[in-house]
Amino acid sequence: MKNKVLEGIKEKANNVYRKILKKKAPELDLPLRSLSNVKYDEKEGYFEILGKKKERTLTVGTIKTFAQTLRMMGLSKQLIEQDDIATKREAYYVSKNWKEAMFKAQPESDTVMDDVEAMMMVNREQLGFIPEEKGGEIAGKLIVVDRDPETKKELKIDCTKFGSGAYSIPISVEHLKFETNAKFILAIETAGMFQRLVKHKYWKKANCILISMGGVPTRACRRFIRRLADDQKLPVYVFVDDDPYGIGSIYRTLKVGSGNAAHINKYFCVPQARFLGVTPQDVIDYKLPTHPLKEVDFKKIKDLLKNDPFIQHHKPWQKALKQMQQMKVRAEQQALCRWGLNYVITKYLPDKLKHPEKFLP
Amino acid sequence: MKNKVLEGIKEKANNVYRKILKKKAPELDLPLRSLSNVKYDEKEGYFEILGKKKERTLTVGTIKTFAQTLRMMGLSKQLIEQDDIATKREAYYVSKNWKEAMFKAQPESDTVMDDVEAMMMVNREQLGFIPEEKGGEIAGKLIVVDRDPETKKELKIDCTKFGSGAYSIPISVEHLKFETNAKFILAIETAGMFQRLVKHKYWKKANCILISMGGVPTRACRRFIRRLADDQKLPVYVFVDDDPYGIGSIYRTLKVGSGNAAHINKYFCVPQARFLGVTPQDVIDYKLPTHPLKEVDFKKIKDLLKNDPFIQHHKPWQKALKQMQQMKVRAEQQALCRWGLNYVITKYLPDKLKHPEKFLP
Repeated sequence: MKNKVLEGIKEKANNVYRKILKKKAPELDLPLRSLSNVKYDEKEGYFEILGKKKERTLTVGTIKTFAQTLRMMGLSKQLIEQDDIATKREAYYVSKNWKEAMFKAQPESDTVMDDVEAMMMVNREQLGFIPEEKGGEIAGKLIVVDRDPETKKELKIDCTKFGSGAYSIPISVEHLKFETNAKFILAIETAGMFQRLVKHKYWKKANCILISMGGVPTRACRRFIRRLADDQKLPVYVFVDDDPYGIGSIYRTLKVGSGNAAHINKYFCVPQARFLGVTPQDVIDYKLPTHPLKEVDFKKIKDLLKNDPFIQHHKPWQKALKQMQQMKVRAEQQALCRWGLNYVITKYLPDKLKHPEKFLP
Repeated sequence: MKNKVLEGIKEKANNVYRKILKKKAPELDLPLRSLSNVKYDEKEGYFEILGKKKERTLTVGTIKTFAQTLRMMGLSKQLIEQDDIATKREAYYVSKNWKEAMFKAQPESDTVMDDVEAMMMVNREQLGFIPEEKGGEIAGKLIVVDRDPETKKELKIDCTKFGSGAYSIPISVEHLKFETNAKFILAIETAGMFQRLVKHKYWKKANCILISMGGVPTRACRRFIRRLADDQKLPVYVFVDDDPYGIGSIYRTLKVGSGNAAHINKYFCVPQARFLGVTPQDVIDYKLPTHPLKEVDFKKIKDLLKNDPFIQHHKPWQKALKQMQQMKVRAEQQALCRWGLNYVITKYLPDKLKHPEKFLP
């Protein structure tokens, strides 16, 4: 994989070099990154990028960006060759030594990095660039196979052996391998619910892998779930709050990706994800305490129904969101505590897991 | 410890019960929680609560809060006895079954929980109440001794064995034990810098424990560092951005706690913490790229100089903040990349660690 990316960079650079030798204006092809250049196909399972391209030809007007793009490709080459990493922020600071090609502000270098990512048709992590933020914790029936960064020796990390703690997903997960006999992955919105399930070793009872997303999952967390689910052919069940944010931001981003990162959804979506709960119907079935929806919630529901290709594709989601609209309330995962702190373990999750076929798509 | 808290709850409850039997109005004593009831003493090392108390006597006007306080004490007793946990949010939902003593909104139940915490003079975690959020990751020369939540068997978690990943600090850390021969703890602001040091196994070179705080450290993270540093008699060096937020929010909160949580600073402060950098002087010495301070930054500096008892106590901090004010710029940890991605490992940290006595207090 690494070598393929390296070769790709060298090839693009060589094309530029050869054009220059022939005294022709060199150019770089970039896919157009915008919603007008994506489609949603349930079979593919994510917002897929279409064929539209923009060309960046070397002219007086583009010379700086052109040079910066080549420099960024060079930095990526260096990172891959030296097995090193750089955050977006660090890459920006490295450019302070690029003289005239120096970036004035980070948004500029971020854009060029996104361009290189799209040009190579890989995700940033494969270029050696890592996100600033991390997130995502694991407990349960999983052995993560990493390697010692120094000796390159294999390291087996047993996620049943963390007691009340957990394994924290690294920023780059491309090199990890997995061993498990778990039946499914349970992706959880809040750290508090995760801690409850860990405390009571729910992963043992249910034979599963618990993942705490801590709100909208980071790139590393999404990529980790995707790679794990693909590799081990595991279903992914998502357990979040019953509100437009839990459904439209957390779940939707995990499952199909987002609009403004269309060129990388392919790597970061988890098409096998299914929505366990909390659903608007659960609020009725389990008589959960609720909070009234606010203006901003109603707006988000309307927006999802009207503009989101994923929701528009799935009738059951339209029905669920309209039900929430009519009920005028939202409910949190923790609302299950109304029936006892561990009702979620003794009743709600076992009930639900009897019928995964009923989970929302 | 657990038994002491249990006995304390029972004793307070018994006092109420006995008063009622004698047909007298029962009362509960609570320390006053406000800045007017704290002092800063360098020897103690944190904002310490003074003796002022408020009394909550049972009257027609206080009957609901009084009942809620007793109920909350009861919930805590149950949690401790059953070795269970509850987040603030969960405790609020549990109250939905308390009939007339039900809380209408979570701020009400949070206040009562804070009251019980202050009344028992312990931290919330010792009452079985855990924070919603977690945070804090560990890599390096440390073995955390936890226990299996089910079998209670000892579990040794070796933080040198996670490859590119890390150990994620659990929400409650009271029961953890530690084994280490590291020389110091390095607490780091950003996940990106942490990942760089992990990637290059800096903890091995420097014989230390790396902790990623991810911005302002959570309660669990602060308590973990405190317990680890006390238990193993380790110095704590803090490595954050050179800006009023890194100094006045992240570092200050880690070291001495905060004003509005005075009754628990005793448990959550890390008095042994010292400020490694980035300092305003580093910006000059290492010729770091900077960003101009904004209006809000200048305001925060003024506020720290004028109102913060910790800054007022330490001349070197006043000097450093005034220097920042005059330089009119801030600098990030990542700015060190200007001299190469791993300059921080080969030059900056080794340089600095030669003279810990020069670290800001």
